[in-house]
Amino acid sequence: MALDQVQALLFDTFGTVVDWRNGIARDVAPFLAKHGVKADAHGFADAWRKRYRPAMKEVIDGRRPFTRLDVLHRENLEGVLRDLGADPARIPEAELDHLNRAWHRLDPWPDSIPGLTRLKKKYIIAPLSNGNIALLLNMAKRAGLPWDAILGAEVARAYKRDPKAYLNTAEILGLPPEACMLVAAHNDDLAAARKVGFATGFVLRATEHGPAQTTNLTAEEDWDVVAGNLMELADRLGCPA
Amino acid sequence: MALDQVQALLFDTFGTVVDWRNGIARDVAPFLAKHGVKADAHGFADAWRKRYRPAMKEVIDGRRPFTRLDVLHRENLEGVLRDLGADPARIPEAELDHLNRAWHRLDPWPDSIPGLTRLKKKYIIAPLSNGNIALLLNMAKRAGLPWDAILGAEVARAYKRDPKAYLNTAEILGLPPEACMLVAAHNDDLAAARKVGFATGFVLRATEHGPAQTTNLTAEEDWDVVAGNLMELADRLGCPA
Repeated sequence: MALDQVQALLFDTFGTVVDWRNGIARDVAPFLAKHGVKADAHGFADAWRKRYRPAMKEVIDGRRPFTRLDVLHRENLEGVLRDLGADPARIPEAELDHLNRAWHRLDPWPDSIPGLTRLKKKYIIAPLSNGNIALLLNMAKRAGLPWDAILGAEVARAYKRDPKAYLNTAEILGLPPEACMLVAAHNDDLAAARKVGFATGFVLRATEHGPAQTTNLTAEEDWDVVAGNLMELADRLGCPA
Repeated sequence: MALDQVQALLFDTFGTVVDWRNGIARDVAPFLAKHGVKADAHGFADAWRKRYRPAMKEVIDGRRPFTRLDVLHRENLEGVLRDLGADPARIPEAELDHLNRAWHRLDPWPDSIPGLTRLKKKYIIAPLSNGNIALLLNMAKRAGLPWDAILGAEVARAYKRDPKAYLNTAEILGLPPEACMLVAAHNDDLAAARKVGFATGFVLRATEHGPAQTTNLTAEEDWDVVAGNLMELADRLGCPA
C-alpha cells in the first residue's frame, strides 16, 4: 500500500498507547484491601479485561443497542467482584464508580507521548478506540496525550472489529479508507482495518499482558509498517525528531 | 450560578473563536475573479452565512435527517452562486469543493490561541459548534487551536439551538449541565444553553459581521461571565497566564 496517501493515524489505545494492566492493578490493589477481597490485583485486572470482548460482542452482533464502554466496564466490574464472592451492592456507589474510572487514569507507555508528538507534526492523530469519549478525553487530559480529536466507538457508533468502526471513522474525517492508518499492537484489529482498506501499522507491546505474554509478539501479516514502539513508528514514517 | 462547579468550557466557534467573514471573503475573492462572477467578496460571505440558519432549521424541526454542515454549506454555496446568475454546474467540482472547505481554513481572532491555551490549564476545552468534526479538526490543525476534543453538532447529533445539542454534549462528557459552560459571542446561543442548565460566558466580538455590526454588541442577560475576548475570559476565570 502507498503510504504517501496516509493523512490520519488512528490508534488503538488500550495496550497500544496506554498500559492498562499495570494501571488497573494499581487502583485495584487498595480497593481489594479496603473491602477485604482476597485476590491478586493483576489477576483482577486480567479478569476484568477478559469480560471486555464478550460484552462488546453483544453490541456488535446486534443483541444490544450501542452502549458506552463505561457502562460495560461497570457491569463487568460487578461480575468480577461477584466471581470473587464479594457483593457489589454492599460497596458504596462512589467507590465502585471511582474504581470503574481507573480506565480513565491509565498511564501511557514511556514512548507514547514523545512518539505521538512527533507523529502529530505530519499527520492527524486520534484514538480509534473502543473507549467512550469521556474515558479517552479524561485519559488524554491526565496523561498529556496530544490528540487532534477524540474519535472511536462512541463517535462511529460501532465497536471494533465491526467494519463500521473503521469505515465510519474515515467518513467522519472526510477521508477515503486508504488515507487512514490504524496503529495497533493487535494483529486481529489490524486485519479488520486492512479488510476495509486502511493502511496498517503494527507496534510491539510485548508486556501488555504481563511478563508471560504469548500473543501479539510478532507481526502476523505483512503490515505496512512494523515498529517496536511509537518513536520507531515516527522514524519509519519520516517524522522529524 | 456557582462557577466553581464548572469543569468544561464549550465554545461556539464561528464568530466566537474564528473570524469567518474575513476568512471566507479571502478565499471567495479569487474564485469570483476566476469565474467572472461580479460580486463583493464580503457580501458573498454574508449571503453564504445568511443561508446557514434556515438550512439547519430543516434538521432542527425534523423535516430532514441530521446532515453534516459541510453538506449544508455546499448546498448553500450553490444557492448563492445561482442567485448571482452563475451556474455551479459549469464550475469544476474540485474548485467548488475547495471553496466549500474555506470554512475549514478560518483564522482565529488574535486572542483565541493564547486565551484557549490558558483556559486549557484549568478546564476541559472543546468546540460546541454546528461545524462537523472534519471541519473543526482541519480548522484546529491548520490554526493551532489546542482543543482537548472535537465535540459539537455531529457528535451530539443535534444542531444548536436545539436543547439536545447542549444536553447530549454534557452527557457525552459524563458531566451534569451545571459543570459545563457555553462560551459564545451570541446572546441567543447562551440563552438556549442557560435554559438547559449550562453556565454561560459571553465574549464580545464586535466586528464578526464587519464594521457596521448592530447585533450582539452587549450582554443582553446577566451571563455568568462577560469578557471582551478570550484572554479576559481567562482572567475572569482565574486561569494563570
